[in-house]
Amino acid sequence: MHFTAEQRLEDGVVERRFTLGDIPGILWTPATTSAPAPLILIGHPPLGLDRMYPRLAGRARYYAAEHGFAAATVELPGSGDRPRWPAAEQARADLRRAVETGVRPVPGEIVDALVLPLVERAVPEWQAALDALLALPGIGGPVGYEGGVISVGIRLAVAEPRIRAAGFFAGSLVPAAMFEEARRVTVPLQVLLQWDDEGNDRQAALDLFDAFGSREKTLHANMGGHTGVPQFELEPGARFFARHLK
Amino acid sequence: MHFTAEQRLEDGVVERRFTLGDIPGILWTPATTSAPAPLILIGHPPLGLDRMYPRLAGRARYYAAEHGFAAATVELPGSGDRPRWPAAEQARADLRRAVETGVRPVPGEIVDALVLPLVERAVPEWQAALDALLALPGIGGPVGYEGGVISVGIRLAVAEPRIRAAGFFAGSLVPAAMFEEARRVTVPLQVLLQWDDEGNDRQAALDLFDAFGSREKTLHANMGGHTGVPQFELEPGARFFARHLK
Repeated sequence: MHFTAEQRLEDGVVERRFTLGDIPGILWTPATTSAPAPLILIGHPPLGLDRMYPRLAGRARYYAAEHGFAAATVELPGSGDRPRWPAAEQARADLRRAVETGVRPVPGEIVDALVLPLVERAVPEWQAALDALLALPGIGGPVGYEGGVISVGIRLAVAEPRIRAAGFFAGSLVPAAMFEEARRVTVPLQVLLQWDDEGNDRQAALDLFDAFGSREKTLHANMGGHTGVPQFELEPGARFFARHLK
Repeated sequence: MHFTAEQRLEDGVVERRFTLGDIPGILWTPATTSAPAPLILIGHPPLGLDRMYPRLAGRARYYAAEHGFAAATVELPGSGDRPRWPAAEQARADLRRAVETGVRPVPGEIVDALVLPLVERAVPEWQAALDALLALPGIGGPVGYEGGVISVGIRLAVAEPRIRAAGFFAGSLVPAAMFEEARRVTVPLQVLLQWDDEGNDRQAALDLFDAFGSREKTLHANMGGHTGVPQFELEPGARFFARHLK
């Protein structure tokens, strides 16, 4: 892990850009910490870190400045400046065509082709990032994961015992196979659902929530579309992680 | 309104028993207040204030001690020591029989007979209580309503302009007519749903949430049965009211 840039922001949070091999990432840490800060991994859709930066930094800085968490994210495979691969490009083109021609629900084979290889590639990378991040001074376990891609989060929550709580965003297309995997998730969950999400099937999201094996799981459904998660959801998210990571 | 008993509890909250005509009620006020405290009406099922006291006082004292709200509740018509009326007794007996013989869903005519007269009688009483409570020194509007019976809350939210926010508990049988009335609710809502509520149809609760006309509405669904609302839901409830009443 190499740090490539560092700045102290006006809220006192330190933002550091890093690379892990060829994977770019960002780490936010609180101004001061007495004990090692629990770490929250900030998930995001595969649209590139630069485009997602305002939303990711908003959440991460809130967690760090107001609640003393460290927060980190890495670029997903095939996003931002990272190399594409032909099958993923084909799946993205197929999805665009399905959406443009109003095919709903999006056919399962397109969802599978789009999401499953992303999960396969991304999860070991997030785990490698976790190894590197937890080796830094001032950052300690346990770890939380929050955001989408929910399928990446599901696989991580199942595969990675260092993750002790997850705040998922039920806003992406979910392969049928991930519903089965969801039954094996046992960590406490808080799931955000946008009730009128134009790109997401509400009933499928409720079915997925129902499928999770966790004994403690909470659904927060709010009005509005995909990007309309209310600002007031930041606080219960942080308090959820504080209950389980501190 | 006549106060019949007063005690200062160990958290500094003052608990006063009162009667309003022949209706018993309880008022909880914070230890100290600079400005008039916003008021939260604490709704409850028709099981009698004495039986409900621990749960009601737990919520009310938290609101008062931790967040500076006043909180109050009154006995529902036909509950506790208040006079029964034959049609309500008949409806309760019909419900018991339906539940015992496993008739599900509970037939609409039983739900209507049980809930609609309760709404008709209770709502003017809660409004009269509001008149009396808001005339007390140290208590000021705006007002919130929280809890069940959700149908009472719906009617109050529609009929009573002093109510500016409502935290409903989606845990009771709801007459079909109340779904229509729900569309006329416009105040901000936070709705609690117990995902495995043995006495409540989950899909009906989701349909009711969908029906509410409010632009800001949030659903918090948690695992467990009717009485299993997690302790950690107290805080987002209080913060919801703080956003809208302070």
